[in-house]
Amino acid sequence: MNMPQAPLRAAPSETDIATLTEELRHRYADRVVVSASVREQHGHSLTWAKNQPPDVVVYPRTAEEVSDIVKLCAAREVPIIPYGTGTSLEGHINAPFGGVTVDVSLMKRIIAVHEEDLDCVVEPGVTRKELNEHLRDKGLFFPIDPGADASIGGMVATRASGTNAVRYGTMKDVVLSLTVVLPNGEIVKTASRAKKSSAGYDLTRLLIGSEGTLGIITEITLKLQGIPEAISAGICPFPSVKAACDAVIMTIQSGIPMARIELLDEVQVRAVNAHSKLTLPESPLLLLEFHGTESGVQEQAERFGEIAAEFGGGPFEWATKPEERSRLWQARHDSYWAAKGLRPGAQSVATDVCVPISRLAECVDATKQDIVECGLIAPIVGHVGDGNFHVQPLVNMDDPAEIAACEAFIDRLVRRALAMEGTCTGEHGVGQKKMKYLEIEHGPAALDLMRVLKRAIDPHNIMNPGKIIAL
Amino acid sequence: MNMPQAPLRAAPSETDIATLTEELRHRYADRVVVSASVREQHGHSLTWAKNQPPDVVVYPRTAEEVSDIVKLCAAREVPIIPYGTGTSLEGHINAPFGGVTVDVSLMKRIIAVHEEDLDCVVEPGVTRKELNEHLRDKGLFFPIDPGADASIGGMVATRASGTNAVRYGTMKDVVLSLTVVLPNGEIVKTASRAKKSSAGYDLTRLLIGSEGTLGIITEITLKLQGIPEAISAGICPFPSVKAACDAVIMTIQSGIPMARIELLDEVQVRAVNAHSKLTLPESPLLLLEFHGTESGVQEQAERFGEIAAEFGGGPFEWATKPEERSRLWQARHDSYWAAKGLRPGAQSVATDVCVPISRLAECVDATKQDIVECGLIAPIVGHVGDGNFHVQPLVNMDDPAEIAACEAFIDRLVRRALAMEGTCTGEHGVGQKKMKYLEIEHGPAALDLMRVLKRAIDPHNIMNPGKIIAL
Repeated sequence: MNMPQAPLRAAPSETDIATLTEELRHRYADRVVVSASVREQHGHSLTWAKNQPPDVVVYPRTAEEVSDIVKLCAAREVPIIPYGTGTSLEGHINAPFGGVTVDVSLMKRIIAVHEEDLDCVVEPGVTRKELNEHLRDKGLFFPIDPGADASIGGMVATRASGTNAVRYGTMKDVVLSLTVVLPNGEIVKTASRAKKSSAGYDLTRLLIGSEGTLGIITEITLKLQGIPEAISAGICPFPSVKAACDAVIMTIQSGIPMARIELLDEVQVRAVNAHSKLTLPESPLLLLEFHGTESGVQEQAERFGEIAAEFGGGPFEWATKPEERSRLWQARHDSYWAAKGLRPGAQSVATDVCVPISRLAECVDATKQDIVECGLIAPIVGHVGDGNFHVQPLVNMDDPAEIAACEAFIDRLVRRALAMEGTCTGEHGVGQKKMKYLEIEHGPAALDLMRVLKRAIDPHNIMNPGKIIAL
Repeated sequence: MNMPQAPLRAAPSETDIATLTEELRHRYADRVVVSASVREQHGHSLTWAKNQPPDVVVYPRTAEEVSDIVKLCAAREVPIIPYGTGTSLEGHINAPFGGVTVDVSLMKRIIAVHEEDLDCVVEPGVTRKELNEHLRDKGLFFPIDPGADASIGGMVATRASGTNAVRYGTMKDVVLSLTVVLPNGEIVKTASRAKKSSAGYDLTRLLIGSEGTLGIITEITLKLQGIPEAISAGICPFPSVKAACDAVIMTIQSGIPMARIELLDEVQVRAVNAHSKLTLPESPLLLLEFHGTESGVQEQAERFGEIAAEFGGGPFEWATKPEERSRLWQARHDSYWAAKGLRPGAQSVATDVCVPISRLAECVDATKQDIVECGLIAPIVGHVGDGNFHVQPLVNMDDPAEIAACEAFIDRLVRRALAMEGTCTGEHGVGQKKMKYLEIEHGPAALDLMRVLKRAIDPHNIMNPGKIIAL
């Protein structure tokens, strides 16, 4: 590959920042904020990465304003950090070289909902819950549901997914088109609104998962789903993680179109019971949801029950009422907070890996063994239909030995997943914390190719520098 | 964007070709072919693009051989044209600047089938039918089915889809990972075998649909599907294209998980009846297929029947026996050849566009009107669940006026689709013939971004030059 010399990234000078801040203030007035509290609030998110605040936070309202801000920053080679709700987990929105955080939280318009086409057009600051609130009356929903009420723009940037991915896919599958401001300030639309296309390079998916390192997303066209006629949910305990995973494999092989199939280990179940005042059986547990017609859902559930019994699972209990169902899934979504409750005052370190489903039980079991051996408290929840699971060590940040133990544990976790043909992150993204694993996962040639792309699109390395790949 | 001067592409000198041919012969002996017939056979495909043969055709057996060939060509800046089965439609495999065609038809190994993970690993020369033959005993199938028995490598390169896409997606959705030889000869693996990942830029989808302009695909990891317990198929005539499209929209909105939903216009039905000795009703016709459990399929079919009736469609007739079903879909897959039969001796000009489904009836109706007005014979078939349809004018290539009329018709067709927020090609790809529409579809900034990517990865423009974008 023809590699130009890597542009180094240094923090911009105080003079450059001062001049830039004046220019921004002149145009955006009180939408330019430099107070320490706001800068710190933008300097890290739900992560144990050290706070690294930007110099300035600016709140644009339109793609044209984003373009203008990017051009001002580019003129002085000042770093730009796109910011949604700040709920990412691997240090994605830290500002290690200072610079300007572009907070899109004022860009909240739902521009169009095309009911016949099952799609919608939104601005990046709309959150997933806000979108679903808006869609409910139309009989439509947007299925991607990371734990947090993340912004759609942030979900695109991290290639997010969630509990429905086994049925409805991840962000890479549900985005039809993006509008993006490139590092030179140009505004690009990546695709038409057609459901499929073979017209040139897939710019849409190049941007999805690029974590703000290639551009700032200013508009998203999303595929939607019809709200199913019938939804039913249930829980099923298993004697072991292996038994639960084997039941999941058989369920998927049988073509049962699971909407959700989530694993909680016994530690996580205890946490959820305490946090959400539930009485779930404290063993490896599957939480399930079926979508379809009344009779279809019934049939799916019966078949799953038979498969579960074959692997020693059960009894299979139904949440028949909608309130019960909501409570169950709310508890699942609150698992991050529930886990924190296991050790008040501790820092929660959420991380994830993903492996081929045939290796999942082995990977989870080895990880649980490792947790016991290194003395951590670390509950596990998994999107098992995808082979993706989360481990959430709870760490006393005043104890350097414990921090070191946790870091060593995560390192072993990632290497274990990679050795099983898996990935260092299924849905959280790379940010700062997983950068060191990209070369092990992809090999030096693939990482070089990523660098070539980054350099070609952002030659001065101003877009979210210090994330995904070091230049 | 930092744009280096565009490298021009000139045909290599006779001396360079002669020396390179000697080098290739030395290593690959009789797998290097320069006979006029073989070169011409590789110089165009199922298209009306003029034949443009390469100078040499070489048949590698491994990724390492592909890498070696690419390095030899790169050293002399000789163009490289990757070749699968030669069934693409827009001049993808022509050699406008001469060079070396790399025919992967000897790379036919099915390297692994992971039944628990529902995936497999194949070489690029395996065709879709060969793969499905291999999978049948395992209860699995690969759902993407373009009309031809294309190679998997070629299907990746053109981002192909087919009749099952409405349920199972397109090539962009079913590829987990690729191994690719880059223009510098480096071998890159784009991703792990995990079902999802957020680990860095999506190299997989950057290569899918790149039509051999960024690298040569040497290995593909594909998602598979379980063969459904029950499959049923049927036909349903409609009084108009609009009525058929409205029924499709309602069917999809109702969440009926159609496996296939295909539209044939009355001209295409006549062609299919004649070619496949069927007696389908000669009006706009939907061909349908449902996958699921016995009772699920029954329920889906009944619901569809009700919806069809609401829009004046019917009667809805079932192909109850597997033989009948196979015959029906074979007839659909043979529609290209059937259409040719409408005008023996004429050149078939297959093209496709895709629009949001809400605009499909309008787009098809206007196109049919246009066909009548310009006096062409041009049957229409559509993957209507995706808003994608094919028009196949049959042209007397000895009549320059008719050729001009056909070109003008296709130009109007594409512009009509673009004006309806559609794309210039839903699944055939850009090749040579659709290049001029990319700027209209994507805008100059997005096209520039595509050029930046091409230049960064292939700075000497040796990989399939003259396709997708002009540099």
